[in-house]
Amino acid sequence: MSETPSPTPPLTLLGLGAMGTALARTWLAAGHPLTVWNRTPHRAAPLAAEGAVVAETARDAVAANGLVVVCLLDDASVGETLEGVDLAGRDLVDLTTGTPGEARARAVWARARGARFLDGGIMAVPPMIGVPESGGYVLYSGSRALFDAHAPTLARPAGTRYVGEDPGFAALHDVALLSAMNGMFAGMAHAFALIRREEIAPAELAPLLVEWVTAMAGSAYTTAERLDSGDLTSGVVSNLAMQVTGGGTLLRTADEQGVDRALMAPYLDLMRRLLAQGGREEDTTGVVDLLLSR
Amino acid sequence: MSETPSPTPPLTLLGLGAMGTALARTWLAAGHPLTVWNRTPHRAAPLAAEGAVVAETARDAVAANGLVVVCLLDDASVGETLEGVDLAGRDLVDLTTGTPGEARARAVWARARGARFLDGGIMAVPPMIGVPESGGYVLYSGSRALFDAHAPTLARPAGTRYVGEDPGFAALHDVALLSAMNGMFAGMAHAFALIRREEIAPAELAPLLVEWVTAMAGSAYTTAERLDSGDLTSGVVSNLAMQVTGGGTLLRTADEQGVDRALMAPYLDLMRRLLAQGGREEDTTGVVDLLLSR
Ligand SMILES: NC(=O)c1ccc[n+]([C@@H]2O[C@H](COP(=O)([O-])OP(=O)(O)OC[C@H]3O[C@@H](n4cnc5c(N)ncnc54)[C@H](OP(=O)(O)O)[C@@H]3O)[C@@H](O)[C@H]2O)c1
Ligand SMILES: NC(=O)c1ccc[n+]([C@@H]2O[C@H](COP(=O)([O-])OP(=O)(O)OC[C@H]3O[C@@H](n4cnc5c(N)ncnc54)[C@H](OP(=O)(O)O)[C@@H]3O)[C@@H](O)[C@H]2O)c1
Repeated sequence: MSETPSPTPPLTLLGLGAMGTALARTWLAAGHPLTVWNRTPHRAAPLAAEGAVVAETARDAVAANGLVVVCLLDDASVGETLEGVDLAGRDLVDLTTGTPGEARARAVWARARGARFLDGGIMAVPPMIGVPESGGYVLYSGSRALFDAHAPTLARPAGTRYVGEDPGFAALHDVALLSAMNGMFAGMAHAFALIRREEIAPAELAPLLVEWVTAMAGSAYTTAERLDSGDLTSGVVSNLAMQVTGGGTLLRTADEQGVDRALMAPYLDLMRRLLAQGGREEDTTGVVDLLLSR
Repeated sequence: MSETPSPTPPLTLLGLGAMGTALARTWLAAGHPLTVWNRTPHRAAPLAAEGAVVAETARDAVAANGLVVVCLLDDASVGETLEGVDLAGRDLVDLTTGTPGEARARAVWARARGARFLDGGIMAVPPMIGVPESGGYVLYSGSRALFDAHAPTLARPAGTRYVGEDPGFAALHDVALLSAMNGMFAGMAHAFALIRREEIAPAELAPLLVEWVTAMAGSAYTTAERLDSGDLTSGVVSNLAMQVTGGGTLLRTADEQGVDRALMAPYLDLMRRLLAQGGREEDTTGVVDLLLSR
């Protein structure tokens, strides 16, 4: 006689920052028995009122359930929190943002302690958690068996995307996406600085920014095709020489508006190096390989 | 008896690079008599075959029509090309990318020569020209009378948005949007570099990048609201301390993957300065004002 697995199995969550709290709420709302722990205890109080069991120590929290989700500040805080805690037989899911190398080392560390390990990278801000139509999701890599065993539970807070057995791959994808995002945020900060002392309200610029970066984001497909094929010159519509000239215009505009060049200069430097190497007929794709150390 | 204005009045275009050529084709296709000139004459040949009149000199081209559109590399090339050319009575529309200061100076220069002046900033790549559904458009500022007089002609290649009598405003908006775009492109180049030596194809990363930056672009609205209100702390969902820690993770990942920190470090430096100033409860909005010189 086979037991039907509960659709809402119990789990433990370590870390009740902005993100951990959002995660906790989706599991509680769905009816999962949830044990929580946070270094600073008062952050657990609202969740206790919503039905969470609050553990006094990380050790107690881990002992409470087979599935243990961790969402702390960084990998160092994960190491500190779980130091000396018995992980034997646990399924450890680490949703803390870290490097690929940290995730790989953490996987080895967890296995040595008798735990299965799955790393996750959350592609969502807290208000997107528990809101499927927000498009937020979590990248996972590491133990496929662990992922499959807990798939419905892991899918409560956000969509899931399993990207491979290599425990570093979720973090690698995560950091790649965060890097692109930070580049965009840096560019937008520069854009707002340019108009800060003019008779243009930030709220007027915002929709133009959103529309323009959205329209131009698709250039990632062109870059990918060029990187895959190695053909950097066919069908170029914005040639590098023109873009280098345009980059100069961007910097002169920054000077006119009293804005620091710091966020705009490095990309132009790379475009200039590419042009000096003879990339006249290319677009900017070659910048990617200039970033790699030999 | 009033004359009905032609729906396809004649005009002149100076500059037949990738962008000028795309512009020329939309006017020719719509039936506008078009006179063109390019410094390097052979680029005019295909357009001659499509019906354009090819002028031998910029002077002849300008003399041919009352409406003169210029799309050259930069403002310096506009000055060179039009030096000594009689502009009296002309309507000069400058679609060359330049700084706000250059556009303001060019407006004064044009008026001194008896021309009306309108500056434009093209928010489109050449394949978007003549394709209304692409969403491409041209920002205009300067003479409203000139803009109104030629509105239908100017609307042939792309949508139009008039942003003010200040002739520098089109360029300012243009450069602000290009700055945000370049930031995004820099971030995407970094992202592709991170996976370049891993078993992840660029074509696998591209759709994730597009989806993620598109999902996160809306943060420009939040930034604008905070800049407008001056309230930098209410409703923060990604606190600065966490983001600074995340930025450190981005740089360590770059090191692990052998990728230059150059494109990611400056934004993190600014976030760190903001945090050091006491911005713990803030998000990253305060970076905008850190970019401004005192
Ligand atoms: N918020 C977002 O937009 C977002 C988006 C995607 C991913 N993430 C990731 O989610 C994780 C948590 O982010 P968050 O927004 O929740 O940050 P947060 O609000 O700053 O919370 C940080 C959490 O980490 C705990 N912590 C920090 N250092 C610790 C240590 N040494 N030992 C034990 N606990 C420690 C904090 O405990 P105390 O309460 O005791 O300080 C708190 O629970 C991070 O890895 C972040 O990169 C966040
Ligand atoms: N392509 C895009 O994606 C794009 C998008 C938005 C805006 N724009 C803007 O559109 C303008 C033209 O760009 P493009 O893509 O057409 O560039 P391009 O293909 O490199 O063409 C540059 C044009 O400028 C002319 N030129 C350069 N220096 C000159 C000089 N000193 N005197 C006379 N003519 C000179 C060139 O003439 P020769 O043929 O004799 O060299 C050519 O006609 C730029 O301001 C650019 O920023 C371009």
